[in-house]
Amino acid sequence: MTQQNNPDSRPVIALMTDFGIGDGDVGVMKGVIAGITPYAHIIDITHNVGPQNVPSGAWILAAGYQYFPKNTVFVCVVDPGVGSTRGAIALHAGDWYFVGPDNGLFSYIMSEQTIHAAVHLTNSSYYLPTVSSTFHGRDIFAPVGAHLSRELTGIFSELGPSVDPATLKRLEVGGAVRDGTTINAHIVHIDNFGNLITSMPFTLVPELYTVSQVRIVFKENGITVEKLRQFFAEGPDDGQAFIYGDSSGYVGIAVRNGNAAKTLKVGFGAPLALILSEA
Amino acid sequence: MTQQNNPDSRPVIALMTDFGIGDGDVGVMKGVIAGITPYAHIIDITHNVGPQNVPSGAWILAAGYQYFPKNTVFVCVVDPGVGSTRGAIALHAGDWYFVGPDNGLFSYIMSEQTIHAAVHLTNSSYYLPTVSSTFHGRDIFAPVGAHLSRELTGIFSELGPSVDPATLKRLEVGGAVRDGTTINAHIVHIDNFGNLITSMPFTLVPELYTVSQVRIVFKENGITVEKLRQFFAEGPDDGQAFIYGDSSGYVGIAVRNGNAAKTLKVGFGAPLALILSEA
Amino acid sequence: MTQQNNPDSRPVIALMTDFGIGDGDVGVMKGVIAGITPYAHIIDITHNVGPQNVPSGAWILAAGYQYFPKNTVFVCVVDPGVGSTRGAIALHAGDWYFVGPDNGLFSYIMSEQTIHAAVHLTNSSYYLPTVSSTFHGRDIFAPVGAHLSRELTGIFSELGPSVDPATLKRLEVGGAVRDGTTINAHIVHIDNFGNLITSMPFTLVPELYTVSQVRIVFKENGITVEKLRQFFAEGPDDGQAFIYGDSSGYVGIAVRNGNAAKTLKVGFGAPLALILSEA
Repeated sequence: MTQQNNPDSRPVIALMTDFGIGDGDVGVMKGVIAGITPYAHIIDITHNVGPQNVPSGAWILAAGYQYFPKNTVFVCVVDPGVGSTRGAIALHAGDWYFVGPDNGLFSYIMSEQTIHAAVHLTNSSYYLPTVSSTFHGRDIFAPVGAHLSRELTGIFSELGPSVDPATLKRLEVGGAVRDGTTINAHIVHIDNFGNLITSMPFTLVPELYTVSQVRIVFKENGITVEKLRQFFAEGPDDGQAFIYGDSSGYVGIAVRNGNAAKTLKVGFGAPLALILSEA
Repeated sequence: MTQQNNPDSRPVIALMTDFGIGDGDVGVMKGVIAGITPYAHIIDITHNVGPQNVPSGAWILAAGYQYFPKNTVFVCVVDPGVGSTRGAIALHAGDWYFVGPDNGLFSYIMSEQTIHAAVHLTNSSYYLPTVSSTFHGRDIFAPVGAHLSRELTGIFSELGPSVDPATLKRLEVGGAVRDGTTINAHIVHIDNFGNLITSMPFTLVPELYTVSQVRIVFKENGITVEKLRQFFAEGPDDGQAFIYGDSSGYVGIAVRNGNAAKTLKVGFGAPLALILSEA
Repeated sequence: MTQQNNPDSRPVIALMTDFGIGDGDVGVMKGVIAGITPYAHIIDITHNVGPQNVPSGAWILAAGYQYFPKNTVFVCVVDPGVGSTRGAIALHAGDWYFVGPDNGLFSYIMSEQTIHAAVHLTNSSYYLPTVSSTFHGRDIFAPVGAHLSRELTGIFSELGPSVDPATLKRLEVGGAVRDGTTINAHIVHIDNFGNLITSMPFTLVPELYTVSQVRIVFKENGITVEKLRQFFAEGPDDGQAFIYGDSSGYVGIAVRNGNAAKTLKVGFGAPLALILSEA
């Protein structure tokens, strides 16, 4: 436990849930953690994932985890199956650790990072003494994450039996498919400003800013976006939507000083095609 | 102040208010605390208690405090009487400390825990130098809580004169009354998922999961809930409301992947009866 | 770096943005900070500044910064010009440090405090290795603020070239003008309870509570508020709006147990006049 006295290795625990912040549930999880790992630095990613929206939570986590320190333990709970037979897991992937339900919440992590180890969280000596059937965030995931943050690889294998990562549940993430100059994708996130983030990583469209013309067509309502900008304050503020490179590493659509989701009447999951063309 | 260097006794201060998180007021309280107790671990329970809804705040606190470490100082401010003659108090109850207005916010604590000591917070040497008439959270409760978290019993009696707990304001909490096989109660909380939490603790209905039939009737609109489940993902997802044991230790009503409050059109405080019957 | 081991000088970083708390962006900024300054105490002022509402963010910061410990580093991002040519700055003003865009967000600070030093943040060795065009909070302001919190004046001048504070962008703050017994002002904030905060500091109306009569007239809808109270719970609860001294140091308008903004149909920026008269 020498790490506790070393400022350079203070345990970091990042939390993401769909609990909202009005109930005290997130505070209770932090209280549990503080009782196990007093010196932990607890950081909220968000607690406003859409209720039980696992794909949305998976994306929000994917957009941010790389920016956290090595050895951060992510405790993530978007868990419509709580209390049922869905598994509870921990992953050691890349430079980080992930704790949560086995329901696809870590799909991007598993596709992007090397998985060093994965376990089923069956060792109840790391749980709270009493486990409810509806609040595993408090009773299982928070205490397991807190214990894990203290010792990391030192206790990982004690959390439960090893599991083959290939057997863990995965969502079809990304979902952007390129066919020549057309890329079919969908909306994976709508941010606080109403910006629409697509499932297309920049790496799939390396010529985005060099091709002579680009447009995005929303398949459900036929709306087309043809402008392309590098930052929000570029060019005249004519209220028109434009395509841009979002800071998450994915292609986005925005309206300057406006709300693209409301302007275009486009929601989470909306299918679209981006079409590249030379004049 | 040796505790400051001991990871196992880092002071924990838990905050609960109805200030919301849009104004900076909660941040200011934390700034005040950081100036007094730099090593405090400050944990938010919630700041979204309904504005001036003391009974709701009392319940949210009651549902969570037991999960915080021994010696946590709870600073709680839902305070419609701020600036008036209502008292300001600190309690040492069970393994914890509580600081806030004397308006019933600690009613559950007082009914559930042994009160070791209670004081009126009249010693202004623990306040900020200037006290406003409308923001005692910043000027009185945060600094008193911060000082208290450093020394605990060492300064408790210096905060002001001792007060007889029997004279402190209490709400009628619980409010669930059993009469044979009928339990009359009301809704004490609606959570982020729209689950309805009643004032009935499990301990009042030990046969909930063994009796042959159970139903809840809402008195205002006559709506009846007859299903009973142990966890949210149990059974077919038919959109019907069901009774379950909430993780708070109270009986609740939920709709799987839905919002029971909206489905049943039931709000905070709604009266209801749970009726047990053998076939 | 001896400060890291001294509880009395733990670095405090206060964050204020308009990012909301639903996207994970704030969490990512904290992850970046934790990687640079593990022992920082990160405090949220608010992340719910109205999207791109620089004057509102400037006021919220102004109402609270004085309550934070000496040497707190404020990282503030309300930044409609992100990615454009607007500058990025750090200020050492009064006892605190401020990091953010050069768009007027620090206008109150600059008018209230002595500016010891100001720099343009052009030294990219304190940035993240890759800088996006749309998320400088993550890529520039968070890492610069984290580095600054460790060494303060020790590295301030290394962040970039010194800049003359007179050349920095300033909003017309305050905007309350006294002409005899009439003070013209406007609404600078609406708090969580619907209380309306005006741009009039108490110091501009020292006779507020001693003059025989006072009224506020809203210029747009002609609504007049004539009652005056010292705290919310004073006098009968007749549902009428009243003038009071807000804890921010500015004159406010409230409805007891109600919402003045909704009752009076008054919004951010609404112009008004306060008129003092002797009987």
